[in-house]
Amino acid sequence: MTATSTFYQAAQQLIAAGCFIDGKGWVPATSGNFSARLADGSIAITVSGKHKGYLQVDDIMLIDSEANSLDGKKPSAETGLHTALYRRFPDIHAVLHPHPLNAVLVSRLFGDEIVLENYELLKAFRGITTHACRVVIPIFANDQDISRLAAQADAYLDAHPDCQAYIIAGHGLYVWGVDVNEALRYLEAVDFLLACELALRLHRAV
Amino acid sequence: MTATSTFYQAAQQLIAAGCFIDGKGWVPATSGNFSARLADGSIAITVSGKHKGYLQVDDIMLIDSEANSLDGKKPSAETGLHTALYRRFPDIHAVLHPHPLNAVLVSRLFGDEIVLENYELLKAFRGITTHACRVVIPIFANDQDISRLAAQADAYLDAHPDCQAYIIAGHGLYVWGVDVNEALRYLEAVDFLLACELALRLHRAV
Amino acid sequence: MTATSTFYQAAQQLIAAGCFIDGKGWVPATSGNFSARLADGSIAITVSGKHKGYLQVDDIMLIDSEANSLDGKKPSAETGLHTALYRRFPDIHAVLHPHPLNAVLVSRLFGDEIVLENYELLKAFRGITTHACRVVIPIFANDQDISRLAAQADAYLDAHPDCQAYIIAGHGLYVWGVDVNEALRYLEAVDFLLACELALRLHRAV
Amino acid sequence: MTATSTFYQAAQQLIAAGCFIDGKGWVPATSGNFSARLADGSIAITVSGKHKGYLQVDDIMLIDSEANSLDGKKPSAETGLHTALYRRFPDIHAVLHPHPLNAVLVSRLFGDEIVLENYELLKAFRGITTHACRVVIPIFANDQDISRLAAQADAYLDAHPDCQAYIIAGHGLYVWGVDVNEALRYLEAVDFLLACELALRLHRAV
Repeated sequence: MTATSTFYQAAQQLIAAGCFIDGKGWVPATSGNFSARLADGSIAITVSGKHKGYLQVDDIMLIDSEANSLDGKKPSAETGLHTALYRRFPDIHAVLHPHPLNAVLVSRLFGDEIVLENYELLKAFRGITTHACRVVIPIFANDQDISRLAAQADAYLDAHPDCQAYIIAGHGLYVWGVDVNEALRYLEAVDFLLACELALRLHRAV
Repeated sequence: MTATSTFYQAAQQLIAAGCFIDGKGWVPATSGNFSARLADGSIAITVSGKHKGYLQVDDIMLIDSEANSLDGKKPSAETGLHTALYRRFPDIHAVLHPHPLNAVLVSRLFGDEIVLENYELLKAFRGITTHACRVVIPIFANDQDISRLAAQADAYLDAHPDCQAYIIAGHGLYVWGVDVNEALRYLEAVDFLLACELALRLHRAV
Repeated sequence: MTATSTFYQAAQQLIAAGCFIDGKGWVPATSGNFSARLADGSIAITVSGKHKGYLQVDDIMLIDSEANSLDGKKPSAETGLHTALYRRFPDIHAVLHPHPLNAVLVSRLFGDEIVLENYELLKAFRGITTHACRVVIPIFANDQDISRLAAQADAYLDAHPDCQAYIIAGHGLYVWGVDVNEALRYLEAVDFLLACELALRLHRAV
Repeated sequence: MTATSTFYQAAQQLIAAGCFIDGKGWVPATSGNFSARLADGSIAITVSGKHKGYLQVDDIMLIDSEANSLDGKKPSAETGLHTALYRRFPDIHAVLHPHPLNAVLVSRLFGDEIVLENYELLKAFRGITTHACRVVIPIFANDQDISRLAAQADAYLDAHPDCQAYIIAGHGLYVWGVDVNEALRYLEAVDFLLACELALRLHRAV
């Protein structure tokens, strides 16, 4: 397969992911960004300012592993969070960053992490084979300085290499996977479990 | 492009916006009205009494900047709120007025304004480049006297020229933008943030 | 138009109404029933036991004004509530009875009526021209004896001829209109307003 | 009809059921599994690891009544819960196991059962002809040892032969019926009633 056809295939996957994610209401307005790493190490990523539920091929650009544009389009500021994840995890090929309501609410109501325990759905994550486990999703402070935000994530991931998703407070969620489908699966699982924790928090508080 | 084709293009945009907005549940029954200003200053606007999720071209009429009918159809009473916004903001070309549940709830539970702070999604608004800001959406008392309601909005907008949306209590939301897509983007952003504030209010009160 | 084509037209409207209503989640399992009165006074009505989101023409039967089958199909027990409404209101031609979650919840949390005040959306009801009004929706005890239930509704409607909808406790909602579209409009409006009242009740109680 | 065409027909029903169930949000990520018993006693069942909203014929396998693979595909661990239900109830031909949010929440907030009373929708269940009844849905502790979990269910069903659904805590819901449509009907009814109970619990607690 040529580099060009690989890019178009990745772009089609990101477009389809955007339809799916927007159908859930997780990318209001023009929020969010999605990427896929190609076989040659370059990365297809959504340009900024487009509605992620109605992406077209022209709304996907190509960058190198250092977030430099390879096609003259201007990458969004948050691109640095994607490339930091690709550098850290050689086996991943997709990063999805939507803004789900549940992630935003959790970031305002829980402290610097949310702990998920005793859910069968935790088995959606790689390497987890029983509900009797404990998955922690960290919550980082939001920051318009992306390198500072990436450094915050890097410090956490250095200490917690098994982490499979993180929340940025008042902002959204980052998930990643070996391909777009795995990242989508994690996204669905995380959102469902955040919805559980929010509802349980309310019920238990009254 | 002829004046006629411009009208049909604007009508098609309003019809599509109606499908999108109804898909979110924001225009129950025959509530809401939408408009788009054409290049010649005339305004395409939905007639009253139609379901906004199932609009046809015949359900869009043409008025002048003073809300006088240009095609013999009868404009809805609320047309005066649209024309007041177009007179005030020369650069806007779309006004959307749906009745989202969240806007109605906020109007009953918050005072005369709702303050949105520290959300990444605030960057959906023009001129905002950081979550570390404060966006205020005013809440006006409902009034069947539209010129009195328009005067209420005008007084507020005179004092707050950066305001990009307002709520009418027990009624709905007004947003506007340079084009229909920008107004839709603001609408999605505002509804999402109102949903956040409502959920947080409940969680924090228990 | 022949009687047969009139029946098919009414059946198509009920089928479309079922799709719309099921899309909102208001007819779970095989709950609910819908009817339309034809020009000759006979009534097209859904048979029982079918999912209302997937109706076919064969799932609609024809009865006379006394709920007798005109085509050999067996009418559902609740048919008597439809015919009682058609007898009372000569101008109506559609009755919709879904089971929305909000109606069931309201019937458990409010007393024998729910009062809707100060909502712009109240103007969806015939004869209402301002939010500054008061619409009461009565809540009747559920009863498997349909003639007793019809008598309960009749007694209320005798005393409140302007009533445009009623709730049966733990069961669902009845709305009616001059045609299927008007009844659908009332249904959307009532459900929206019940959602408002339920959310406000919760917010105000905490 | 040949055994092969019967299998394909059952597979098509499970695929359609998956679309319906995923549309409700009841099978996040790759959770859930569905099966249908064929006339010869063999069982068509979803393989594990696939998203249940996007099933293809290849994602359905054939097992015998003891959960042995008949086509070389590897059955999921939970297959044993399906076969236990088929052995117990000779008249059922479908078992659906989704992971609805409401079932997970109920399992965390209610004890070892949830009691449903006084709902018209209870008539969705076979043999129930009035709202004035009491339906109990048991909640079992989750267990990765499926034979132990099946034994837990068996002990309960021995004592409660009329039970038509059960919940596994932090996990999901099992429903069964004479065919896929009946099981879907039960699923819609149970989820609706769990939603009622959860909302009422919150309202009554404040």
